[in-house]
Amino acid sequence: MSIPPYQQLELCFKRLSTLSEVEAILHWDMSTVMPVGGAKARAEQLAEIKAIQHSILTSNETADLIALAESSNTQLKDWQKSNLQEIKRRWIKATALSENIVKALSKACSNCETIWRTARSESNFNLVRPALEEVLNLTREAAQAKGEKQGLSLYDALLDDYEPGGRVADIDPIFDELESFLPDFLGKALDAQSTRPIPVLPTGPFPEEKQKMLGNQLMKALGFNFDHGRLDISLHPFCGGIPDDVRITTRYDKKDFTSSLMGVLHETGHALYEQGLPTQWRGQPVGEALGMSIHESQSLLIEMQVCRSENFLRYSAPLMKTAFNGTDQTWEAENLYRLYTRIKPGFIRVDADEVTYPAHVMLRYKMERDLIEGNLEIIDIPESWNEGMKNYLGISPPNDREGCLQDLHWFDGAWGYFPTYTLGAMIAAQLFEAAKVAMPEIVPSIAKGNFRPLFQWLTKNIHSQGSLLSAKELLQKATGKSLDPEIFKTHLKTRYLE
Amino acid sequence: MSIPPYQQLELCFKRLSTLSEVEAILHWDMSTVMPVGGAKARAEQLAEIKAIQHSILTSNETADLIALAESSNTQLKDWQKSNLQEIKRRWIKATALSENIVKALSKACSNCETIWRTARSESNFNLVRPALEEVLNLTREAAQAKGEKQGLSLYDALLDDYEPGGRVADIDPIFDELESFLPDFLGKALDAQSTRPIPVLPTGPFPEEKQKMLGNQLMKALGFNFDHGRLDISLHPFCGGIPDDVRITTRYDKKDFTSSLMGVLHETGHALYEQGLPTQWRGQPVGEALGMSIHESQSLLIEMQVCRSENFLRYSAPLMKTAFNGTDQTWEAENLYRLYTRIKPGFIRVDADEVTYPAHVMLRYKMERDLIEGNLEIIDIPESWNEGMKNYLGISPPNDREGCLQDLHWFDGAWGYFPTYTLGAMIAAQLFEAAKVAMPEIVPSIAKGNFRPLFQWLTKNIHSQGSLLSAKELLQKATGKSLDPEIFKTHLKTRYLE
Repeated sequence: MSIPPYQQLELCFKRLSTLSEVEAILHWDMSTVMPVGGAKARAEQLAEIKAIQHSILTSNETADLIALAESSNTQLKDWQKSNLQEIKRRWIKATALSENIVKALSKACSNCETIWRTARSESNFNLVRPALEEVLNLTREAAQAKGEKQGLSLYDALLDDYEPGGRVADIDPIFDELESFLPDFLGKALDAQSTRPIPVLPTGPFPEEKQKMLGNQLMKALGFNFDHGRLDISLHPFCGGIPDDVRITTRYDKKDFTSSLMGVLHETGHALYEQGLPTQWRGQPVGEALGMSIHESQSLLIEMQVCRSENFLRYSAPLMKTAFNGTDQTWEAENLYRLYTRIKPGFIRVDADEVTYPAHVMLRYKMERDLIEGNLEIIDIPESWNEGMKNYLGISPPNDREGCLQDLHWFDGAWGYFPTYTLGAMIAAQLFEAAKVAMPEIVPSIAKGNFRPLFQWLTKNIHSQGSLLSAKELLQKATGKSLDPEIFKTHLKTRYLE
Repeated sequence: MSIPPYQQLELCFKRLSTLSEVEAILHWDMSTVMPVGGAKARAEQLAEIKAIQHSILTSNETADLIALAESSNTQLKDWQKSNLQEIKRRWIKATALSENIVKALSKACSNCETIWRTARSESNFNLVRPALEEVLNLTREAAQAKGEKQGLSLYDALLDDYEPGGRVADIDPIFDELESFLPDFLGKALDAQSTRPIPVLPTGPFPEEKQKMLGNQLMKALGFNFDHGRLDISLHPFCGGIPDDVRITTRYDKKDFTSSLMGVLHETGHALYEQGLPTQWRGQPVGEALGMSIHESQSLLIEMQVCRSENFLRYSAPLMKTAFNGTDQTWEAENLYRLYTRIKPGFIRVDADEVTYPAHVMLRYKMERDLIEGNLEIIDIPESWNEGMKNYLGISPPNDREGCLQDLHWFDGAWGYFPTYTLGAMIAAQLFEAAKVAMPEIVPSIAKGNFRPLFQWLTKNIHSQGSLLSAKELLQKATGKSLDPEIFKTHLKTRYLE
């Protein structure tokens, strides 16, 4: 008996998913342990995997199966219909590109990422300029091809890779609203802050080993399953791996444990989402995490809504104190809360507070649109960056290391990714608001170090849903409304003005 | 202009090599860092890679290219002829197997390896018996298919995977000679040993971090390039990764640094071979390491011939003493030499001295032949193992953890591998003998911690040769004669009786 077309597609996409898993592990390895001399071979490996995926996805057989499966669509269950839809979306994107450009882009990104590591540590933008030029040219070429097939502009075609269905036309009004709210709000919040005691950083040193133990302890408390994941070190913290083996990373600063610890908690938010994805659809597009704004909402819900709250710090301050044998008053929850909600315009996005963070994102969003649309040249990046920082936050980075070289994204080919951070922050506020209404025990439980009620709500409403719905539908279903910037603004006002 | 058939084959085998590299990195990850919950997905990943390689290798296109390339053979350079020969050998082996058995075997091995980890730590053979049964059945099926295509017996077909051209008919007379020499020699060597002072193990504790630093230091001294490799921890030490990124592992014992350190030096021998392989043939079969007996000869040359010698210990004893802040006489080179050449029949192969080591190998060699040929059942492994140990070394393991569960090989599907250890030990003695004659400065240099003359000889005669010649030809060319057990016997007599 022959297998029906749709079921054959499931088998095919299971294979593609397995190859993506291979890619994820190779990426983790590259960012955490690979010696520098392994870079060239690794680029070849990643490009080969991408090429194989591409050739499976763009084969005549796959095209035929999709057409046949669509014509017998009525026999499918709802989740299978969603799956088929996402299969089709990926197929359209893939068939837009030749194997040559896929392989070339993969190699260009691996190569550029490797050079960026040196360029960043030496603060030398020119070193990485030619490699970035290659990445951008290939990215634009790919965006052009995908855009034509999908009827999208260059930038929307890229954005759609990270945020399925995400469009500039939807983002711009929301970002405009934030842009009109934030500068004024920042001033007020800084004023309010100046009336409160200045928080004091506990003094170290904080040995790496102890920081790691504390991170592990809080990860476990939040629900991270160490049978299905790890915590390691990398230059640029990330959440990688696969749902059955989630790899998060951090970097330790012996003089200040607070930033690394919060980074760990942020990545734990991502990790809990991955670990909570529906196992019954494992390996199928519908079983994967939804776009990056929902992903980022999960990390920011844990970081900004939960872990920087007074309730969480009342629970965790004594654990921090014990971990580092703290004695003085800097270890009090109150001081740590002021520390963790301190607003300070700075150069580094990943270190930014939640009030100034959107400025970092908008700067990158506008610049990358200009770069993709040909309205900005690569050679002008440093100057444009520094000007943007001056306009948004009134400060200029002293060097490119703390400026345009700080983030991996562009150098690794992740164009169209940045806006999802701020969308994620807003969605996080909206989800947490809805969760608290639905389960009033969530907040008091957090103060006791019990995250089960929150976890329960997130699992049910977000994690277990995979990609069954669109991001818009998911948000509507979970919170009863579409994305509403007022909720994020209210969160900021409550936390920083009251 | 179309690419000629042979050159197309080179492109195809470059792709296959890239996929083997992916496999190597996934294997390293699995053995060093992967959490237990990642095992199932990893098995799928490895099986998928194997299936893709198999489908490339067994495609009609590859068959046609090989036929065409062979017919225009006269236009090829010598190295290309060797390359084509090895391509053909791999193609014959691969076409003997269906994709189903390749995938099934890969998954069975991954699965069995995972269970073996638990079975070993719990000393519970029955736990892993069903998984091992599956591995053995599939291995026999594969051996049958390959044997038919190559005109080889079941066991020779497996041996040929690890030792191209290796045959039972060549090994048996050599092993018989050792078997008639060793028992009597062991008695004499133990007698001689009893007249010398008993060596004393320096007392610890030896912190892991310091052991690692010392290992790194000696690896560097021997010529290991850390830009192209790493040292990590795993349950079962191995040398993995790829020539551009060689990953060796060890396990640390806080009470005894000597065994881990010597393990590191052993794996460094493997690693130097990999790092020294000819870059101009990278990615082609001819550029890869020759069979496992030559590979093992490289680790054993470094370990047994070099690092357990008085000369090496005269150089390294002060480094060990400094590393651990040693003070007493146990840190003298003389004591360490007696320690590192101590003969003591024991249960564990990887801890065995070079006099009793061949007994461990012969036990496994005979058992695995019987298992493959159907003359021994899996259920009888523990009893047969313990009897064999009694016969060979007069001792019986107290449990299966120190008996038949100690080695990964069978559980991971590496049947036909074991004899290469003892062949390697004999080749190591023969190569070192030839090297010393060719470059008399090698031995005095070792005493000064200068390994460049040795490295030079090995690079020229072994490493840079890749798979240009057969193992027999390489040995003949490097030493002027075929494998001669007398040289190994002389080495043992000189070291242990004089």
